Amino acid sequence: MLIEPGELLAKINAPSDLRKLPLEKLYQVCDELREFIIDNVSIYGGHFGASLGVTELSVALHYVYNTPYDRIVWDVGHQAYNHKILTGRRDNFHTNRQYGGLAGFPKRDESEYDTFGVGHSSTSISAALGMAIASKEKGEHDRMHIAVIGDGSMTAGMAFEAMNHAGASDANILIILNDNRMAIDPNQGALKDYLTDITTSPMYNKLKDEVWNMLGKVKKIGPHARQAVASAENALKSALLEQSNLFEALGLRYFGPVDGHDMNHLVHVLNDLKNIPGPKILHAVTVKGKGYALAEKDQTKWHAPGKFDKLTGEIKKKTFSAPQPPKYQVVFGETILEMAKENEKIMGITPAMPSGSSLNIMMKAMPDRAIDVGIAEQHAVTFAAGLAAEGMVAFCNIYSSFMQRAYDQVIHDVCIQNLPVIFCLDRAGFAGADGATHHGAYDIAFMRCIPNLVVAAPMNEAELRYMMKTAEQHRTSPFCIRYPRGQGVMPEWRVPLETIEVGKGRTVHEGEDVAILTFGHIGNYVVQLRDRFQSEGLNPGHYDLRFAKPLDHDLLKEVFDKYDKIITVEDGCLQGGIGSAVLEWMMDNQYTNKRVVRLGIPDTIIEHGEQIELQAEAGFDHEGIFQAVANLSEKVQNAEVILEKNKII
Amino acid sequence: MLIEPGELLAKINAPSDLRKLPLEKLYQVCDELREFIIDNVSIYGGHFGASLGVTELSVALHYVYNTPYDRIVWDVGHQAYNHKILTGRRDNFHTNRQYGGLAGFPKRDESEYDTFGVGHSSTSISAALGMAIASKEKGEHDRMHIAVIGDGSMTAGMAFEAMNHAGASDANILIILNDNRMAIDPNQGALKDYLTDITTSPMYNKLKDEVWNMLGKVKKIGPHARQAVASAENALKSALLEQSNLFEALGLRYFGPVDGHDMNHLVHVLNDLKNIPGPKILHAVTVKGKGYALAEKDQTKWHAPGKFDKLTGEIKKKTFSAPQPPKYQVVFGETILEMAKENEKIMGITPAMPSGSSLNIMMKAMPDRAIDVGIAEQHAVTFAAGLAAEGMVAFCNIYSSFMQRAYDQVIHDVCIQNLPVIFCLDRAGFAGADGATHHGAYDIAFMRCIPNLVVAAPMNEAELRYMMKTAEQHRTSPFCIRYPRGQGVMPEWRVPLETIEVGKGRTVHEGEDVAILTFGHIGNYVVQLRDRFQSEGLNPGHYDLRFAKPLDHDLLKEVFDKYDKIITVEDGCLQGGIGSAVLEWMMDNQYTNKRVVRLGIPDTIIEHGEQIELQAEAGFDHEGIFQAVANLSEKVQNAEVILEKNKII
Repeated sequence: MLIEPGELLAKINAPSDLRKLPLEKLYQVCDELREFIIDNVSIYGGHFGASLGVTELSVALHYVYNTPYDRIVWDVGHQAYNHKILTGRRDNFHTNRQYGGLAGFPKRDESEYDTFGVGHSSTSISAALGMAIASKEKGEHDRMHIAVIGDGSMTAGMAFEAMNHAGASDANILIILNDNRMAIDPNQGALKDYLTDITTSPMYNKLKDEVWNMLGKVKKIGPHARQAVASAENALKSALLEQSNLFEALGLRYFGPVDGHDMNHLVHVLNDLKNIPGPKILHAVTVKGKGYALAEKDQTKWHAPGKFDKLTGEIKKKTFSAPQPPKYQVVFGETILEMAKENEKIMGITPAMPSGSSLNIMMKAMPDRAIDVGIAEQHAVTFAAGLAAEGMVAFCNIYSSFMQRAYDQVIHDVCIQNLPVIFCLDRAGFAGADGATHHGAYDIAFMRCIPNLVVAAPMNEAELRYMMKTAEQHRTSPFCIRYPRGQGVMPEWRVPLETIEVGKGRTVHEGEDVAILTFGHIGNYVVQLRDRFQSEGLNPGHYDLRFAKPLDHDLLKEVFDKYDKIITVEDGCLQGGIGSAVLEWMMDNQYTNKRVVRLGIPDTIIEHGEQIELQAEAGFDHEGIFQAVANLSEKVQNAEVILEKNKII
Repeated sequence: MLIEPGELLAKINAPSDLRKLPLEKLYQVCDELREFIIDNVSIYGGHFGASLGVTELSVALHYVYNTPYDRIVWDVGHQAYNHKILTGRRDNFHTNRQYGGLAGFPKRDESEYDTFGVGHSSTSISAALGMAIASKEKGEHDRMHIAVIGDGSMTAGMAFEAMNHAGASDANILIILNDNRMAIDPNQGALKDYLTDITTSPMYNKLKDEVWNMLGKVKKIGPHARQAVASAENALKSALLEQSNLFEALGLRYFGPVDGHDMNHLVHVLNDLKNIPGPKILHAVTVKGKGYALAEKDQTKWHAPGKFDKLTGEIKKKTFSAPQPPKYQVVFGETILEMAKENEKIMGITPAMPSGSSLNIMMKAMPDRAIDVGIAEQHAVTFAAGLAAEGMVAFCNIYSSFMQRAYDQVIHDVCIQNLPVIFCLDRAGFAGADGATHHGAYDIAFMRCIPNLVVAAPMNEAELRYMMKTAEQHRTSPFCIRYPRGQGVMPEWRVPLETIEVGKGRTVHEGEDVAILTFGHIGNYVVQLRDRFQSEGLNPGHYDLRFAKPLDHDLLKEVFDKYDKIITVEDGCLQGGIGSAVLEWMMDNQYTNKRVVRLGIPDTIIEHGEQIELQAEAGFDHEGIFQAVANLSEKVQNAEVILEKNKII
């Protein structure tokens, strides 16, 4: 069922159409946008709260600025749905986040209005500043550059680095601080409190009014506007203490706070700001989920609710007759709490993903010992190293692709010092609908090259529990456990906590001719293929490596002594991954005459879709694994069996 | 020649000895420390300015605090020489930064007073906060935690992330902002200007005096000190605008600025601060190089001057009869300027390493087009991506180990979007005396696993120029060029700029039996071994791969068709490095029956020393390469030649 847009929205095929409307019609555009988003997300799923919070801002920006000539960068991009709908993608919007459909985030390939691809937070100011300085160098002095960044994203150090540079430059950049007090979970840290303070301070509200009044007068003056604004501002500032504001201290002219849902005011403010050169920040206060009452009330739940009934607000969950396996996230969250009750040295750390990682379970039960440090992966890792240096058992849970943000800290602060921090890398492998920016594609390669670090991946829920317990006991080096987003395979997952030997794999099935070495959850695909293998007369061996580092030398020796054809399977990049580790081992141990086929993520950017769709594209879904075995197998080769390329298991 | 310490210093074997002295003797201790450092560095080399700037601070901290029970974390660690000398390492100090000797930075293995290993900047607040929260959890409420961080390090986002967390906590942490206006080069950005403003503001100086006066009174009150201080502070704050300071905005109580060379005042201030709980910052203004006039005057030159005559200040340079090859750094610096004169779209970016990278050559000639963004690697990369998005040719020069700080930005902002940013990875391979934190050991592995990225390494100066020119012309993907610290091999290096084919290697020498595949500068070792090979009757082929990605399929095919024994040599980690790339290629192309030996950095932490010493330890110096060839060679094996294990070329 395609969603019909409202009557105004139906006619807006580009921002130029929007700009033909009189200001008073923009209210209706906002209403229609919100309805269109709510209708679409309720049926097709997607991110929800962030875009509803910036409907007025999105309309105002495209109304006031000359996009795409002027450059808007949407930080993270959860907030870009209105922008996408207004910039020619309305009729494809129902394909949002689906395989082959629109991306959930802005993407340069998709539209000239998407000036910079986003996904991870806090990149927008750097990117917009780069664009602004490029424009200056190219002599395009009339081009405007706007970064729209949330208060959650503002806590990441990268945003601070960019402000420190912007504030000392004369670049023509406007930062819009979209202050809704939220990341996915409530925003954390001192900055959040500060923003609340200035928003509620009578002094700042007085300042705000005076600035706008003066700007109003200045506009009427005409050609000398810039100079006049400058002196008006200086007069105002001298009435206050110099550097009275955190952003002013960083050299950015601060304007606001303004109500981010007051369309009329926003349009006037943005028009005024066009005449003020140099780096500046507009503080807009918004409500995440604005316009959908339930989402305003429970903003974390409605960040990305999945499909729902828009009238009742009931979120649609699949129903099952049999008990279902839990998500790996739940196993992590329940298990760390269970362990922490027994070991008072255990602490949990998450950079702004308490609900996503399920650390919120421990945060609720033990608020002092489970800490959300905000969007601050670098700090999270070194903070964990500080805890470990004092003897604590720090479980630092970071999504695989976000761990890229803290790579130096993993090397420099944890592994070089050999501090026993435990990393839990959530969302390892394909992330699914979030797409290329969020796939945990590289971690096996970038973690296993670091000395001292143990790199493990559980094949199922019980293994995750064993590995967490093993990591807790293993105090001689750092330890990394990677696991995917989503469901495992064990409805009865709460097995007793046991340790396993570090660097020891498992024989899942003794076979013949071909051996399959798997790492992590993807190994279940091989188990699920057993019947099919048998029905085709194949009997490949299956070995769960468990550890990418240290490798299980004994197990590998057993496999390489027995089999001449080996397939490795990993949900990670082929360059430098566990398949390469096996090749290194093979050659270091002077096995020649072996044929090794590596399955994993190829050396290309894979976009969004269901995990299984992406695994199929990459060639390591059930079919891909089956084909690899069949292609290597003497039996199949001899019989010249014709394999159906797209047969579904 | 060992340096004799002064009479007081000679008796200080631990901070407890220092704490027995009366306060008035500390001036002499400082004088003796400075003299000892100057004498040692002038003879043995090392970092210079930073430690001279914190002599009083170091003495005051160990005098006031109960180290090692109280935890001091020295950011970066260039500033830790006084600390090392005071904590039992005086008599080994002459071994500083030498192979097998003391590390140039604090190091946990080396002393219980080194609470946290450092090297890269801006980690100290995170680490100290982790320690402080661990102490709280362990009930050690009397333990103090101090992070000493420079204003240069404060610009890195990681420090901001940590302050955002600290300021919202009740952790017992003191941040000492060592404000000397310098990184290695002058500090950059808005924060620097802000610190200058508050240091010179009469308002802040008034505040400062009032605070200390009140603290003085409070001390006499006795047991109710804490409560009284809190109310005194509140009274003061209400006299100012709330949140009137950047640090106060982040929830840190701000004290200062104080003169970081006023020993008496420092001791009293630190004693007072011991009684103030919670997160706080002391702003100390210091002079880098204090006490050595020439170093105070030219702080960049004297950051790490090498050996010098302490009386005349003449820095000792080796003299040579013949023209010497340039440093790769100079080739980069001169070449980018030469190219930028021809192409107005070229811009240069460095995060705080203008002199180290030689981008200062272009900065001087074209200040608008060569930009130092401060210690801000993350921002540097995404800023470069923003420039590239607007069509500029951005050369982003970052040391290999510092690139770890911007890894996510390389993946997320540059490579996923396939923006043609050019990365110049300086200090690739062993960094030398800076040690484990600074070795560019992992970049081949962590860069080659990213799709779209070209990964190249020049074997000599001409190749570096060709690769820079090639990268400029190559607008279809990002491009990374890695090269080592130090001298190349071509005294006549200024060859005409030419492009080479991306993904094409070179045949350096057609040989027989064994092929050596090298990547980058290390290939010169093979050239230098030619005579020795010949004299031993060996004739290995030599191929310069040039590109780790894309690999030269034709060249590899030629090599693998001709030779059965292949040696790869790289100055990077063996896990996932170019040797592994060759194994992947070999197996994907179904070559079996080949013997491949990979030389490179083994899977362990290698400490500091001369580059050649570390390469010997890792087994890929001249001797290591020779032995690898000899071991594989039929000729040598048949003749059972006994090889001298440690023969020097």
